[in-house]
Amino acid sequence: MKLLKDKVMSEGIVLGNQVLKVDSFLNHQMDPVLMKEVGKEFARHFEGEQITKVLTIESSGIAPAIMTALELGVPMIFARKNKSLTLKENILVEKVYSFTKQETNEITVSKKFLDENDRVLIVDDFLANGEAAFGLARIVEQVGAKVAGIGIVIEKSFQPGARRLKEAGYRVDSLVRIAALENGTVTFVDDQTNE
Amino acid sequence: MKLLKDKVMSEGIVLGNQVLKVDSFLNHQMDPVLMKEVGKEFARHFEGEQITKVLTIESSGIAPAIMTALELGVPMIFARKNKSLTLKENILVEKVYSFTKQETNEITVSKKFLDENDRVLIVDDFLANGEAAFGLARIVEQVGAKVAGIGIVIEKSFQPGARRLKEAGYRVDSLVRIAALENGTVTFVDDQTNE
Repeated sequence: MKLLKDKVMSEGIVLGNQVLKVDSFLNHQMDPVLMKEVGKEFARHFEGEQITKVLTIESSGIAPAIMTALELGVPMIFARKNKSLTLKENILVEKVYSFTKQETNEITVSKKFLDENDRVLIVDDFLANGEAAFGLARIVEQVGAKVAGIGIVIEKSFQPGARRLKEAGYRVDSLVRIAALENGTVTFVDDQTNE
Repeated sequence: MKLLKDKVMSEGIVLGNQVLKVDSFLNHQMDPVLMKEVGKEFARHFEGEQITKVLTIESSGIAPAIMTALELGVPMIFARKNKSLTLKENILVEKVYSFTKQETNEITVSKKFLDENDRVLIVDDFLANGEAAFGLARIVEQVGAKVAGIGIVIEKSFQPGARRLKEAGYRVDSLVRIAALENGTVTFVDDQTNE
């Protein structure tokens, strides 16, 4: 996705060999026009998949997910990272390890919003090790629903998440794929799925 | 806002005299069409205010805020509730007490996204005691920027937040205002600003 690539090139800040900081348009300040285009792009990618729900995880996934849900004409659900006070029962829970924060969180979704007839598109801002996406997929599968696809805004292809998810049988569509963050420079995976 | 009132009536669940659960369209599962209409409505309310940024707080404020920012053609920023690992310096911090969770959180915004020329619209999903809105307003004012208004999706008018914010000189526009949650029933404040 050219608009997103351009934004990564002009505003992304490389910190070490692992971290790409995109807090000017995706993670903290958000560009609503870019988010709308991201939503349209995901809708285009998955339009044949009869998606019934878009699922993401708080907080940075919410904006791309709501725009995708708007384009697909389906509800969006965001998983919470801590149990909410008003969500004590009838919840789907999975543990997710965060390499960034080096801690395990419980992510939760209310049972009443997913059932076995759902075809769920998982959307998230970043894909690195794949822990969050696997956790969301397990939540979908707990109720017997189908993970119809995983849409990622920025994939760090030098980390194992995308490979692991594909090996597990999931369709993963990433709007930009980053091959390396060496020497302060962003190198993209140069294939046609980016264009 | 009639669409939102109808949604509160048909899907809101009253828990005791204080809590309105709206997790089927606003707090957990989200209705993207409703969020888009909420964004349009806030844009209409504040169109004369020369807004330069929309500011909210994770997580439930993000969807209405991104839709509002899209309509106004300005960036959106969401305050984080915990300090991020990649945001150690140059941050604006305020303490916010949560009556629901009975704990004090630090909310943070990166300094680089706000300056003294900004006219900021604060957007949030709920207004009860006003702690979050006051915290966001103090963050805006730390850098000498102006709070041009506060847009609230659902105001619980029987709690003191709206009155306190107005007494402090802020413009507060709430899309629905709830007078009471007695006997399991939602009673709206019946004035023209709701229509």
